[in-house]
Amino acid sequence: MGRLTGGDPSLLRRINSAVVLHTLRAADSPTLTHLVQLTGLSRPTVEGVVEGLIESGLVVEAPAEEGARRQGRPARRFRFRAEAGHLLGIEIGAHRVSALLSDLSGRVLGSVQHDVDESAPADRRLACARDTVADLLRQAGVARDSLRAVGVAGPGIVEADGTVRLGTALPGWTGLPLGDRLRKSFRCPVLVENDANAAAVAEHWKGAAAGSDDVVFVLAGLSPGAGSLIGGRLHRGFGGAAGEIGALHLLGRGATPETLLSTTGEPLHPLDEAQVARVFTLAREGDARARDAMRRFIQRLVHDVAALVLALDPEIVVVGGWAAGLDGVLDPLREELARYCLRPPQVALSALGEAAVATGALRLALDHVEEQLFAVEGTVTARR
Amino acid sequence: MGRLTGGDPSLLRRINSAVVLHTLRAADSPTLTHLVQLTGLSRPTVEGVVEGLIESGLVVEAPAEEGARRQGRPARRFRFRAEAGHLLGIEIGAHRVSALLSDLSGRVLGSVQHDVDESAPADRRLACARDTVADLLRQAGVARDSLRAVGVAGPGIVEADGTVRLGTALPGWTGLPLGDRLRKSFRCPVLVENDANAAAVAEHWKGAAAGSDDVVFVLAGLSPGAGSLIGGRLHRGFGGAAGEIGALHLLGRGATPETLLSTTGEPLHPLDEAQVARVFTLAREGDARARDAMRRFIQRLVHDVAALVLALDPEIVVVGGWAAGLDGVLDPLREELARYCLRPPQVALSALGEAAVATGALRLALDHVEEQLFAVEGTVTARR
Repeated sequence: MGRLTGGDPSLLRRINSAVVLHTLRAADSPTLTHLVQLTGLSRPTVEGVVEGLIESGLVVEAPAEEGARRQGRPARRFRFRAEAGHLLGIEIGAHRVSALLSDLSGRVLGSVQHDVDESAPADRRLACARDTVADLLRQAGVARDSLRAVGVAGPGIVEADGTVRLGTALPGWTGLPLGDRLRKSFRCPVLVENDANAAAVAEHWKGAAAGSDDVVFVLAGLSPGAGSLIGGRLHRGFGGAAGEIGALHLLGRGATPETLLSTTGEPLHPLDEAQVARVFTLAREGDARARDAMRRFIQRLVHDVAALVLALDPEIVVVGGWAAGLDGVLDPLREELARYCLRPPQVALSALGEAAVATGALRLALDHVEEQLFAVEGTVTARR
Repeated sequence: MGRLTGGDPSLLRRINSAVVLHTLRAADSPTLTHLVQLTGLSRPTVEGVVEGLIESGLVVEAPAEEGARRQGRPARRFRFRAEAGHLLGIEIGAHRVSALLSDLSGRVLGSVQHDVDESAPADRRLACARDTVADLLRQAGVARDSLRAVGVAGPGIVEADGTVRLGTALPGWTGLPLGDRLRKSFRCPVLVENDANAAAVAEHWKGAAAGSDDVVFVLAGLSPGAGSLIGGRLHRGFGGAAGEIGALHLLGRGATPETLLSTTGEPLHPLDEAQVARVFTLAREGDARARDAMRRFIQRLVHDVAALVLALDPEIVVVGGWAAGLDGVLDPLREELARYCLRPPQVALSALGEAAVATGALRLALDHVEEQLFAVEGTVTARR
C-alpha cells in the first residue's frame, strides 16, 4: 500500500484525464454535456481535461452533426484522434516475416509479408524484418516518426529485455538480443514476445477466444508451444518459459519430435511442413505407415495439450499453427480431453490463422500505448 | 472502467479508513501525529477515521509509554485490536481432521486434531470436524460468536459455492454440499478450498515459498494433486480444477495409481500409507521388486510435476504430502526437472509438513476478513 496516499490531487487529475479519454474513445463524438453525464465529473473538470487532451493532439473537435442545426450554435463535439499515432505488429517466423500497421484504436491499416529461407542466419532474418516494415510504412503512407510502439513475436523463450534465452527453431536465435537489435530501427518502445503467447493474446482480442479470459493457445507443430491467458492476462511464467510443454515427451519416452511423423525411421526436419503435410495426405489415402505416424503425432499433441489443461484448467483451448489446419487433429483432441480431463474445456480452431502471431504482437504494442494513455490502474495497489 | 467515477467522496473515505487501519496494524502503537506522517492524510481526517475505528471495536487506545512521561499529558497512542475477532482453519483429510484457531492478525492461538477412519462416511467425517472445532474453542476459551471467518480444505475439486464437484479420495465426498453443511455450525462466512491449493497458500504465507509469488505446491501421494500461485494469487482455474494433474498418466499409459507401487501386481489401496511406506523400506533394503515399484512411483511423480512446471514456469516447487517425507523423492525430482525443463525451478520440501493444509485454510479465512477490513482494491478497476 506504499503508494496509497489518500486524496492525492495529482492522482485524481490523472484518473479524471484517463476517464475522459476512455469515454471519448468509446462514445461517438460526445458533447461536453454528454461527457459530464457519462463520467460523473463536474463540467469545469471535464472542460479542463478536454483542453489538455486537445493540446496534446489526442483529441480534436469533431464537425457538428447535420441534424443538430436547429437553432443557435450547435454544441461542440469531440473525438479521439486515433490517427495521432501508429503501431506495428511483426511476426518473425521460420519461413516468413509478417507485419501489420494500425492506428491508435487498433484498426489495421495495412500488412506486408516477405518470405525468408528457413536456413537464413539471424542477420539476414532481421534485415528481412526491416525491409518488411519499410515496405509497409511506404505503402500505407505513414511516417516512421508516427510510430508509438512496435510489438515483435517469434519462437523461443524471451527475456523481459527482449533477448532470446532459447530459440532452437531459428538459426542463430538463442542468445540474440532481438529487442536491442530492433530498437535501433525505431524511436518508440519495441516489445518482444514469444509467438504462442502473442497468438493467445490475439485470439482473445478478436479471435476464437474473444469473451473468454482463461485461454490456452496451442501452436501445433512437431514440437508444440503454448501461450495462456489467466484472468484475461498473459501468463509468461517466472522466467518467461510458461507453456513450453514440448519437452514433456523427453521424460522416459522414446520418440523425438523429428521421428514422430517419420514413416521411414529417418528423422523429418521439424520445419519441413510440406513433407509433414504429405504424411497426412498418405494417411488419408490409407497408407498404413503414414497412419501410424499420424496417430503418434496426434497422441503426442493430445498428451501435451492435456498436461496444459490439467495444470491450468482453461475455459477454452484454441489450436493454431500449421498442424491445426490438417484434417483429423481437432476431433481426436476434443474427444481425448473430454475423456481424461475432470472439466473438459472447449476446443476451437484458431480464427486468425496465419495472422494470429502478428496480430498478437500488434495488440501488445497497443496495450503498451494504452497503459501510458489510460494508466490509472496500479496507483491504488493490491494488498498481497 | 464502469466504477471509476473520478473524485467519489465515499471511495476516498473508504481508502482513507483502510490506509489508517493498515498503518495502525503495521506500526507499533502510533500516535495521531505519527499516523498523520505515515499516511500523508490531514490530522482532522486521521482523527475522524480513528474515532470510527474505535467505535467499531477494531482499534483501542494503547497505554502511554513509560519513557514518555516527561512533561504534561503524553500523546494518545492507538493499536489494532487483533483480539476483536477470531478465525478457524480446518483440514478434513482421509485419516484426521485438524483445526487451527487464530486472532485477526493471524497469530495461532491453538490447534486440535481428531483421528477419523478412512472409510468413514461423509456424515461421520463432518461430525468429527464439528467435534474438533468445539474442542478447540473450549480449550482456547474463545466464544463461537467471536469467529469472523472459517476456512476449510480437503481433497477434491471444489465449486465456488463450496460443493465438492469431484472427490474420489473420501467416501461420499463427490457432490457433497460441504460449504452449506458446515455453514449450519457457524454464523460467519465459511470458505471451502481444495487441499493442495490451501497448502500452496500456506507455504507462501509462512513456509518454504515465503518470498516467491510464482509457486507450485505438489501434494505428493499415489495420485498427486497440486496447487499454484501466480503473481502471489491462488490460481484455481476456470472450473476450479487447475493442478489436478493426476489424470495425465491415464493418457496412453498402463499403470494406474493403485498398481504403480505394487510389488505383487495386486492393487494397493491409495490411502494405505503404511503399506506404501513399507515398499519404500523394502526398496532401501535392496528388494528388487520394491526398487522397481519405487522407481515407477518416482518416474510418475516427476512426469506429473514436470508437466506442471512446463505449463506454469514457477519460481519454486514445494513438495508436501505423505510421500514428500519418504527418502529418495526430492533428489530425483530435482535432477530430472533440471534435465528437462528449460528453466528449472527451485525444489523444496514443505516447511509446514502436516500443518500445511489447515494453515492454508486459516490464511484463506484471514484473506476474506482482511478483504472486508482493507477493501480498496478493485475500486479503481483494471482495464482489460
